[in-house]
Amino acid sequence: MIKSIVLKKRPEGQPIVSDFEFKSEDLELELKEGELLLETSYVSVDPYLRGRMSDAKSYIPPFELNQPIQSGVIAKVIDSKNDDFKEGDYVSGMLDWKTKQVSNGEGLLKVDGNIAPLSAYLGILGMTGLTAYCGLMQIGKPKSGETLVVSGAAGAVGSVVGQIGKILGLRVIGIAGSDEKVELLKSKFGFDEGINYKTTKNMAAAIKEAAPKGVDIYFDNVGGPISDAVLFNINRFARLVICGAISVYNNTELPTGLSVQPFLVKNSALMQGFIVSNYAEIFPEAISELSKWLKEDKLTYSETIVEGFDNIPYAFIDLFVGKNKGKMVVKI
Amino acid sequence: MIKSIVLKKRPEGQPIVSDFEFKSEDLELELKEGELLLETSYVSVDPYLRGRMSDAKSYIPPFELNQPIQSGVIAKVIDSKNDDFKEGDYVSGMLDWKTKQVSNGEGLLKVDGNIAPLSAYLGILGMTGLTAYCGLMQIGKPKSGETLVVSGAAGAVGSVVGQIGKILGLRVIGIAGSDEKVELLKSKFGFDEGINYKTTKNMAAAIKEAAPKGVDIYFDNVGGPISDAVLFNINRFARLVICGAISVYNNTELPTGLSVQPFLVKNSALMQGFIVSNYAEIFPEAISELSKWLKEDKLTYSETIVEGFDNIPYAFIDLFVGKNKGKMVVKI
Repeated sequence: MIKSIVLKKRPEGQPIVSDFEFKSEDLELELKEGELLLETSYVSVDPYLRGRMSDAKSYIPPFELNQPIQSGVIAKVIDSKNDDFKEGDYVSGMLDWKTKQVSNGEGLLKVDGNIAPLSAYLGILGMTGLTAYCGLMQIGKPKSGETLVVSGAAGAVGSVVGQIGKILGLRVIGIAGSDEKVELLKSKFGFDEGINYKTTKNMAAAIKEAAPKGVDIYFDNVGGPISDAVLFNINRFARLVICGAISVYNNTELPTGLSVQPFLVKNSALMQGFIVSNYAEIFPEAISELSKWLKEDKLTYSETIVEGFDNIPYAFIDLFVGKNKGKMVVKI
Repeated sequence: MIKSIVLKKRPEGQPIVSDFEFKSEDLELELKEGELLLETSYVSVDPYLRGRMSDAKSYIPPFELNQPIQSGVIAKVIDSKNDDFKEGDYVSGMLDWKTKQVSNGEGLLKVDGNIAPLSAYLGILGMTGLTAYCGLMQIGKPKSGETLVVSGAAGAVGSVVGQIGKILGLRVIGIAGSDEKVELLKSKFGFDEGINYKTTKNMAAAIKEAAPKGVDIYFDNVGGPISDAVLFNINRFARLVICGAISVYNNTELPTGLSVQPFLVKNSALMQGFIVSNYAEIFPEAISELSKWLKEDKLTYSETIVEGFDNIPYAFIDLFVGKNKGKMVVKI
């Protein structure tokens, strides 16, 4: 019995469980030459998937209705007719939300559970860590002594960005949505300052207080009014790394806010949107750096592990109400 | 008798003539060793000066009240105790709005009226041409076959940007505020298409029609709703060159509009604000290229020349109601 989860309906605003459908098939999967059979171990749920559930032009095509959703997956090779992979190997790749599936091996990377727990390859050593590293290094171009502000700072990407900032000698300020998260930023991830945007009335003033020398790099996961408040504090030649805009992904109308152009002109500032795959050529460097920092205990990470294939949609939905701390992963 | 114009009052919204004050002094100017006496020939009036008239943090300090305003000026050397300049030379530099003034020569460049008319050194071979060239080349990074949209296209900078785009083999679409200007874009400056934003109801659709392959580079002089409309049409890896935001400079409240972040993330797009002095190291290359294109008749320019020192404030104010075609210059 193979279970899968398909997109039944494109979400309107916040995704709900009835946007998804569970299917079961009684299939005997036959391998052709070059193929391998995979059994899913861990499934990554990520905010960016919300974008692919809409029928809008984007950097990757939208998910098709009644077809399985795809995301980062760690799977075990349980049968192989492909010389590059053998039974018992673990791999990571963009795979279907299915309990078992056949692959031709394309795009799969072998992962080693001895270096780090398997789930880490969906997080700190996977898309999450790569997104943090590539966005911060390639667009943020951090220099020791500068000030870095991170929004969505207690999230999977944000917490890594802040830690890399500290490793590189920056002053790091995190913005998050609860006192508990703010406390975690400082105690666990070593941020210099944290701001709870839900209890702070004047965000621009709070950022100014936390960043008295102004903001050189802003790593933006949220968009919306928080990002507007940062604009008042940017320095000349500031770099605004636009990684995501989770605060507006579920908007059914186009979000509005402060016009950024006058701030960018005044400060010769840069805003750059990106997706991690733009920087594929530096992934080896990134994984090597991240692994080194992990081993040296300079880098730590949180993950929220939900158990059970059937809980994938719930785990995904929970991302948008901030129920996760760090990377949200479903263990099958 | 030396006349000067000082900033009497910081403008609120649209500048008005009573924000300025005319002064006359009966002074005998004495030169010290290394100094030269300059008689003003042409004065440049530019939208960015509005920013310096406000008391806000910016890339250059605000003008001081009761002190002469400064802008780009072409002046004749009428006496010199500086070995680098002799009587009869013409120079360009950032100088006071005064009929005569003393300089130590710092920041002055000699200009040659035989290569181009003197006023051109305030325009196509001065700040205007350099702004167009540096912004387009350094941020826009144009590649033949791409599509370039220019707002404020009939303005001093915009008309040069579009022409450089055509020289480099791009499809060029200009946005301007009258049918006459749109006609000029096509007939005089060689743009492929022009859009009159004042008579176009759905700007996003009009841009889409003019740029069927999407927008790779947007050279933005205006900000506001025109720039919002461009966002719907940007391609992956688009570069948005933020040169100015004249549509909002006179706003007394902070302008708002579409949130750009989701568009930037979706398209891995870049927005970069700049001022021309960031690129001083490529000015020699830029002036050499621009002069070459001028000589080859590949580049043409418009200027609106207003006569008389006393008309400087009026010429400046007229910029904000679009009375100029191309570079606005005051001849003394």
